Amino acid sequence: MTRLTLALDVMGGDFGPRVTIPAISLALKHHPTLSFILFGDQAMVTPLLTRLPTEYQQRIQLVHTPKLIDEALPFTQALRQSKGSSMYLAVHSVAQGETDGCVSGGNTGLLMGLAKQQISLLPEITRPALTSLIPTLNGKSSVMLDLGANVEADSRLLLQFAEMGNIFAQTLLDLVYPRLALLNIGTEDNKGTRQIREAHQALKLANHLNYIGYIEGDKLMNHVSDVIVCDGFNGNIALKTLEGAVKNTFSFFKKPTEDSHFCHNSKRYLLKLMFHHYYRKLQKINPDRHNGATLLGLSSVVVKSHGGANINAFYYAIEYAISQIRGEIPRKISVGLDNLSH
Amino acid sequence: MTRLTLALDVMGGDFGPRVTIPAISLALKHHPTLSFILFGDQAMVTPLLTRLPTEYQQRIQLVHTPKLIDEALPFTQALRQSKGSSMYLAVHSVAQGETDGCVSGGNTGLLMGLAKQQISLLPEITRPALTSLIPTLNGKSSVMLDLGANVEADSRLLLQFAEMGNIFAQTLLDLVYPRLALLNIGTEDNKGTRQIREAHQALKLANHLNYIGYIEGDKLMNHVSDVIVCDGFNGNIALKTLEGAVKNTFSFFKKPTEDSHFCHNSKRYLLKLMFHHYYRKLQKINPDRHNGATLLGLSSVVVKSHGGANINAFYYAIEYAISQIRGEIPRKISVGLDNLSH
Repeated sequence: MTRLTLALDVMGGDFGPRVTIPAISLALKHHPTLSFILFGDQAMVTPLLTRLPTEYQQRIQLVHTPKLIDEALPFTQALRQSKGSSMYLAVHSVAQGETDGCVSGGNTGLLMGLAKQQISLLPEITRPALTSLIPTLNGKSSVMLDLGANVEADSRLLLQFAEMGNIFAQTLLDLVYPRLALLNIGTEDNKGTRQIREAHQALKLANHLNYIGYIEGDKLMNHVSDVIVCDGFNGNIALKTLEGAVKNTFSFFKKPTEDSHFCHNSKRYLLKLMFHHYYRKLQKINPDRHNGATLLGLSSVVVKSHGGANINAFYYAIEYAISQIRGEIPRKISVGLDNLSH
Repeated sequence: MTRLTLALDVMGGDFGPRVTIPAISLALKHHPTLSFILFGDQAMVTPLLTRLPTEYQQRIQLVHTPKLIDEALPFTQALRQSKGSSMYLAVHSVAQGETDGCVSGGNTGLLMGLAKQQISLLPEITRPALTSLIPTLNGKSSVMLDLGANVEADSRLLLQFAEMGNIFAQTLLDLVYPRLALLNIGTEDNKGTRQIREAHQALKLANHLNYIGYIEGDKLMNHVSDVIVCDGFNGNIALKTLEGAVKNTFSFFKKPTEDSHFCHNSKRYLLKLMFHHYYRKLQKINPDRHNGATLLGLSSVVVKSHGGANINAFYYAIEYAISQIRGEIPRKISVGLDNLSH
């Protein structure tokens, strides 16, 4: 394995270094050739770093960045004011080629703004798309994009998302001819907005793609398509609705309280077994394992973690960045789209 | 209770009379002053009707309608060709004032098309909105609209949906000052499309409404708002995604197979208790209890049931129509909006 360095915004996310540092430790354990440049407040980060094994500490460089972004500011002001913050510097280090990719759990809009400002778009791409893997019931994943980078998307943009998603799925999910679908409110040709219908007709003619037609919201978890294409507004609505429903599902599986009518001591063992049974099933759709959204279409890998991510979830966001870097996703998209245009 | 007559498209839905007739029987049992005019194929319906108690049969009138709509036809052709079908005649009987409302499990687009063609809009309404109750985790419901009648909606239309949803929630959920929210991809003022931001600003100024701002997809089941307003495209995507996730949740609770490692005879009793426990919890978000979407803004009540509805679910769609008729929803919307314009 070649050496690989990630830039990390240690301060981002709801829990900052308390979550990001243990997640980094997990990543260092799993990837012997990985190292990190961390951007964050020394006073907060150092005490947590010193608890790590020396071998890990040697693969971490900390850049002290005391500056915090005032999240209450309007977007454009926050973007301007962000210079020198941990998120800004993490993105900057990727843009400068100092690191191979970056991960942040900070504000999505700001991260996208900074990434688009500093990191060049791939030559064939008009606009990047926020891309995630979503869990499916059979324990596999589908690629979904755009999840919020573009509130609106015309058919040309939807086609670009399809091409990018196709290459992304080939590499990250190791598929030969990934199935592609457009998110819509029905499966008949005449359903949906003009933009979607136009993209639908164009995709039907694209012989190099395995386009299977429209997909509706209720099939998102059923692994009927490997890539799901939509504009950023609908993608965001659908993904958050899905996440909310899955999270709420998990809440049903909380251990019954002591006063539950069936929770007697003699039955504890069986109860544990049952929870184990369901828990294993639910792990398949564990949202933690699918944390991380990437801004696809940029020349480098920039991954956004959920703000509320726990240690495991943040670790998966790091893994997500690593897979994309190792898979050379930006280069493959560039080559793929370049071949198409000739 | 005053007498009430419902028109029913017995043929609609995936299972036709096999589901609709038993559901009708349940409704007749619960509502002694209810009667039905059924539209459907005599040869298929009569054998099922004769099994019902004589008292129920006396409250049912069957209109023989052998004509079937070819669902493979393009929408406009199907609409034209539908004359004389069970769905057409059911809607027609409401339009003529022969019945107080109608229920069908047939094609949504066609039902909306026929309803808009035959039943007049309320004077203050530009376009009707498909409206449903959605389940929330605490066992209550939120009103959501539009769920698919309008692929796009400008801010003026969104405001109308908000007014209609407000009156709907006051009556059907028995609330004094229902909380209203707009579905969006974030909670900050600047998020979302221009149409949504404009509606947001206008709703903030509407003092007669309890507008609480934006709601994101992950909060739909959390009962943070009593009314959720969106365009038909996003509403449809969100609702179907929610339904799919909830349905998939249910699939996790299937009885473990005989060869499961913990399923021994001696433990059967406890197993039953546990399933009962979870089942009761899940019943709260049982989609069956929330079957039925109404085309709000018309001068009469037209309810669409899920095509795949089982007997219980179809029965709930009938109940949904009855509540709206008894609650005089169309008249209240008309009066409410008329008062606002003066």
